[in-house]
Amino acid sequence: MEFIDLRSDTVTRPTPGMLQAMMSAEVGDDTLGDDPTVSCLEAYMAELLGKEAALFVPSGTMGNQICLRIHARSGEEVIAEAQSHILNWEAGAAAGLSGIQILPVAAQRGLLTVDQIQSAIRDRENVHYAPTALVCLENTHNFAGGVVYPLDLVAHIAHFVHSQGIPFHMDGARLFNAAVAAGVSARDYSQYFESVSVCLSKGLGAPMGSVIAGSRDFIRQGRRYRKMFGGSLRQAGFMAAAGLWALQHQIERLAEDHQRAYALALGLAELPGIYLDLETVQTNIVIFDTSGTGIPSAVLAEQLKAEGVLVSSFGPYRARLVTHLHITDQDVATTLSRVRHVITTLVGTTLPVR
Amino acid sequence: MEFIDLRSDTVTRPTPGMLQAMMSAEVGDDTLGDDPTVSCLEAYMAELLGKEAALFVPSGTMGNQICLRIHARSGEEVIAEAQSHILNWEAGAAAGLSGIQILPVAAQRGLLTVDQIQSAIRDRENVHYAPTALVCLENTHNFAGGVVYPLDLVAHIAHFVHSQGIPFHMDGARLFNAAVAAGVSARDYSQYFESVSVCLSKGLGAPMGSVIAGSRDFIRQGRRYRKMFGGSLRQAGFMAAAGLWALQHQIERLAEDHQRAYALALGLAELPGIYLDLETVQTNIVIFDTSGTGIPSAVLAEQLKAEGVLVSSFGPYRARLVTHLHITDQDVATTLSRVRHVITTLVGTTLPVR
Amino acid sequence: MEFIDLRSDTVTRPTPGMLQAMMSAEVGDDTLGDDPTVSCLEAYMAELLGKEAALFVPSGTMGNQICLRIHARSGEEVIAEAQSHILNWEAGAAAGLSGIQILPVAAQRGLLTVDQIQSAIRDRENVHYAPTALVCLENTHNFAGGVVYPLDLVAHIAHFVHSQGIPFHMDGARLFNAAVAAGVSARDYSQYFESVSVCLSKGLGAPMGSVIAGSRDFIRQGRRYRKMFGGSLRQAGFMAAAGLWALQHQIERLAEDHQRAYALALGLAELPGIYLDLETVQTNIVIFDTSGTGIPSAVLAEQLKAEGVLVSSFGPYRARLVTHLHITDQDVATTLSRVRHVITTLVGTTLPVR
Amino acid sequence: MEFIDLRSDTVTRPTPGMLQAMMSAEVGDDTLGDDPTVSCLEAYMAELLGKEAALFVPSGTMGNQICLRIHARSGEEVIAEAQSHILNWEAGAAAGLSGIQILPVAAQRGLLTVDQIQSAIRDRENVHYAPTALVCLENTHNFAGGVVYPLDLVAHIAHFVHSQGIPFHMDGARLFNAAVAAGVSARDYSQYFESVSVCLSKGLGAPMGSVIAGSRDFIRQGRRYRKMFGGSLRQAGFMAAAGLWALQHQIERLAEDHQRAYALALGLAELPGIYLDLETVQTNIVIFDTSGTGIPSAVLAEQLKAEGVLVSSFGPYRARLVTHLHITDQDVATTLSRVRHVITTLVGTTLPVR
Repeated sequence: MEFIDLRSDTVTRPTPGMLQAMMSAEVGDDTLGDDPTVSCLEAYMAELLGKEAALFVPSGTMGNQICLRIHARSGEEVIAEAQSHILNWEAGAAAGLSGIQILPVAAQRGLLTVDQIQSAIRDRENVHYAPTALVCLENTHNFAGGVVYPLDLVAHIAHFVHSQGIPFHMDGARLFNAAVAAGVSARDYSQYFESVSVCLSKGLGAPMGSVIAGSRDFIRQGRRYRKMFGGSLRQAGFMAAAGLWALQHQIERLAEDHQRAYALALGLAELPGIYLDLETVQTNIVIFDTSGTGIPSAVLAEQLKAEGVLVSSFGPYRARLVTHLHITDQDVATTLSRVRHVITTLVGTTLPVR
Repeated sequence: MEFIDLRSDTVTRPTPGMLQAMMSAEVGDDTLGDDPTVSCLEAYMAELLGKEAALFVPSGTMGNQICLRIHARSGEEVIAEAQSHILNWEAGAAAGLSGIQILPVAAQRGLLTVDQIQSAIRDRENVHYAPTALVCLENTHNFAGGVVYPLDLVAHIAHFVHSQGIPFHMDGARLFNAAVAAGVSARDYSQYFESVSVCLSKGLGAPMGSVIAGSRDFIRQGRRYRKMFGGSLRQAGFMAAAGLWALQHQIERLAEDHQRAYALALGLAELPGIYLDLETVQTNIVIFDTSGTGIPSAVLAEQLKAEGVLVSSFGPYRARLVTHLHITDQDVATTLSRVRHVITTLVGTTLPVR
Repeated sequence: MEFIDLRSDTVTRPTPGMLQAMMSAEVGDDTLGDDPTVSCLEAYMAELLGKEAALFVPSGTMGNQICLRIHARSGEEVIAEAQSHILNWEAGAAAGLSGIQILPVAAQRGLLTVDQIQSAIRDRENVHYAPTALVCLENTHNFAGGVVYPLDLVAHIAHFVHSQGIPFHMDGARLFNAAVAAGVSARDYSQYFESVSVCLSKGLGAPMGSVIAGSRDFIRQGRRYRKMFGGSLRQAGFMAAAGLWALQHQIERLAEDHQRAYALALGLAELPGIYLDLETVQTNIVIFDTSGTGIPSAVLAEQLKAEGVLVSSFGPYRARLVTHLHITDQDVATTLSRVRHVITTLVGTTLPVR
Repeated sequence: MEFIDLRSDTVTRPTPGMLQAMMSAEVGDDTLGDDPTVSCLEAYMAELLGKEAALFVPSGTMGNQICLRIHARSGEEVIAEAQSHILNWEAGAAAGLSGIQILPVAAQRGLLTVDQIQSAIRDRENVHYAPTALVCLENTHNFAGGVVYPLDLVAHIAHFVHSQGIPFHMDGARLFNAAVAAGVSARDYSQYFESVSVCLSKGLGAPMGSVIAGSRDFIRQGRRYRKMFGGSLRQAGFMAAAGLWALQHQIERLAEDHQRAYALALGLAELPGIYLDLETVQTNIVIFDTSGTGIPSAVLAEQLKAEGVLVSSFGPYRARLVTHLHITDQDVATTLSRVRHVITTLVGTTLPVR
């Protein structure tokens, strides 16, 4: 069975053009600095983000964690939103690899405010505290439902954070989704941050890899930590070529994913017992709550799988759908009809719980 | 000027009896296992807490952090209340020394519930998560205002935590305050935990030191980590003697500190603009909010210092008073009158802010 | 200019057959367990090494460091040879990411003995020591000159190490070189170890990647740490396909690299002032000392580069040449003649230093 | 039985004068900066060592490890002699708490040379290496037999290390023994180092504690890490008073310990089968090898214990004796006669092994 795979935008496979770019890439030993395609990707991304330099890394997790390690010493603290990927989805790496404590701040729809950050910053003079070394922001915010940070809010926070002598990092795993949705450039966002990480393997559709960007000195440090983390590759140009091609061909089409996600969301919101905050559906992610139906999200996901639709389940009643380049308008329609079918069937037999 | 020092119960100096016990202590090199007074204190505490073994350590921070390190490997997660000492007041040690991520859970009056803990436990099968290795509980809960955990709540949480195959640690820095206030024994509490840390230098009045307790194997590991943390001392018996004397003579009198704290709280609660949750004043700590007066707590603390009264200030409008063996009924009365005086004076000249 | 690149066997580019295998690979999201080519490579390697399970990782450094982290907790000690890659060439990762202390033991020609290991193991009862958690062996031993561990020595060490209740890890970055040179199978070696790491990107010629192998439970833990280290990829099958093809087609030809390395070594050993231990030239690596010529190895490397030959330089007078699939008999002859030329020219003008 | 305890100079108990100083110490909460005796000790030690500031810590291990953590970030490397306390006797703390890799350099009689250090410093430009962040020197060198670093060698090394932009730390656990033996002041030594740690609880005879010294900024950072390590104490003045008294009264008498150690060494060196390098016996430590007698040092130690003499045993055939303020001339004579007796008895029944 060919599944409609809405689990994540990480499931995409290369398009023919991308595959062609990969296989004709000129490569070399990138650990020795000899891979021209990797260098080209890094220069291209640095330019896109308006930074002095950039570095190709195997994954978004490694990209974020290298940035955290450069900004914060072991025993220092990093402020991040409570549902952020850096805290919850990177396997405890900040503490486990770099000794960094993350101080979570729960924000409405994932959007941190200056007041919240101000309250979370520690007094450096008090030896009882782990000093605040960094503030992180996730844009789009995945587990808030793909929410986009308004550019002026970013500017406002950046102004405050910098006034405290603290650097500012953007987990821009889906930065291009944010930029497309907000109608600004990636550079408009990244100008406010000392460091930015961007994934090539999500909506952009490359098989793997992320890029971090910052000052020349920052990237020089990043290169060393990439080696330490085991992310220094050899003929990485095959993978970098895919990312480069994606940056050149697949940014604008993210708007289509956003439209389809909104169509999905509208359809889901009409279903009885499904709770969904339409205001969060700004990009390619739809998160909804199934508790009103009494159906645990894991049960829903399992039944949908039997019907050929793959979705993610988090916690007892939370499900997530992500659109991407393999999802068509027809897939949206089919998905909605199958979700409706599954829920109707289950509600007949399932008692509301909890 | 002789200050009325309400900053903390850590400011106490030994009573004559304690000093006598210290100076006549029989001592040896405790790193070599030769200090009889330390061994005696450890055995005495193990018995008090109903544990197989105990270990003397230089501070409560070290006690907690050794316990965390035994329970959790680097890269694992520990659940603790959002205002807990382990997260906020131990200088980032959990992450910085042991690579442990603390997942804070904000609880009403500092009292965690089973539901909250259940939601915070990570799915071990998902490689994205840092596995939950430990649940911590702070009793009394310092920054919730010295709140005492009801024994049946502890039993209920313990039952759940253990059903998940997760160990349970009590930061019992002020465990004897909790036991005295709840009218139970320290052992009644500690039976529910794999490990417990207790401070000798707070209400008990010893100059320094804490004790951790657990199984024989747990303490064997703790002994090794104590060496690694730099807490393995030599003729530590002088300090252990003070703690032992305190355990034998100064537990019951904690009730007096609690009465005085409540008297302070009642008086403060009457002051206009002071907000204080009397339900949290269960032991020797009084935390109140000054925002209604418009006076930042740091300003209040500074003015009170000029009047001979020392209090702690946290955040813009939060102040803390702690009673202990040097605080008399007269001190309570004097403090109340000076706080009233300072606030009255300041409110005349200070505009409410924020 | 087309260089004769003897810096490392990591510089190889895919052969047409390998590129074809890459391009036609079936792929999926490997983080979600959906990449069939990665799964196939892992199963194939597990079978080759006689282990229950295997895991594809982006680099040899990550492979080794994941294995170390599984075997040793933070604060424990790992015994490794003084010139080993794990200690010297992995950017301090053992300590920096996992809190592991490496205790180096200098061994003749890189071959550890049971006596040396026995002396290095710490007494677990003494709290002053970091407990010995693992013994590592590097086969072939890169910086000893590609030396192969005799199988019976490995068996002998394994017997002793296991008798001490300590696990045993093989850094088999070039395990297939060792097996081909020793005339045994990779499995003959790996049977003695709890964990093995093998590189696909060195003599085997794949663009990137390594594989670790061990018990099912070991690999389950490895999968989690791979995520934490940022090595969990998406459509990794493109890269895994290259490795799989290499395992199926390019193992036997390593013997040719060994012959060419020996030819290089014989030629170099004849040059006046070059010191070279021919007994270490057992595989594809040639390390020699230039101090007798008075020419620093960095100067030699620079001059050779001008002549179209790339070699590595370590320390003041040590140089390394590595043969691989792009090095022909003609390249060997050309290299020898150019080295002779450069040395002759330089010795006329360079005074012996130091 | 009253033992002659030569295991270590850490076994000393306070003299009456010291006990009197302890008992009458003025104390306060040192974590709040209120203990005048601790402040006095810190100022006194800073003056003795010619440094801007100093910090009282519970142990020598904590003192060294705080200094390492300030100088080196996680993932960096520290050069230390192969037998040094920092590497071997601090429970793996450098890696386990601070992520620091120690690169051991084996030196004759424990005295590092500039050449050795130069070879050990890593090239910062090479991402494969952990950057060299610090060089450590142990003076006196405990496990080399209490060897004293000649002042001009220290000056020479310091000049080189600083020329490389690397800081220099002295583990001066027994710095006053070195100074007394070399006929110079502690300050003569400490001038060459960015940081120094000194123990109060060894030859100086205080019950516990060490002091680290350095620049004002260094000690400010140290204060924070002391809190993190759990070494921030409360009424620590009782213990600081002992250290202060020791500094004022017990430095000069170290010369007597040195004379007695030399007398012990001379006597031991005459025994058949005992190997002892008299040139290393420069202070209060005597290390000898028992392999010529065929008696494992653990067996010798056990038999001597039965005769009322306590010594330390390391490894199969190495024993250590340390003189201190409780060891008299008579004890030296008694010890020698008992060692002679035990060896004579054992050699009759023990076959030489290994």
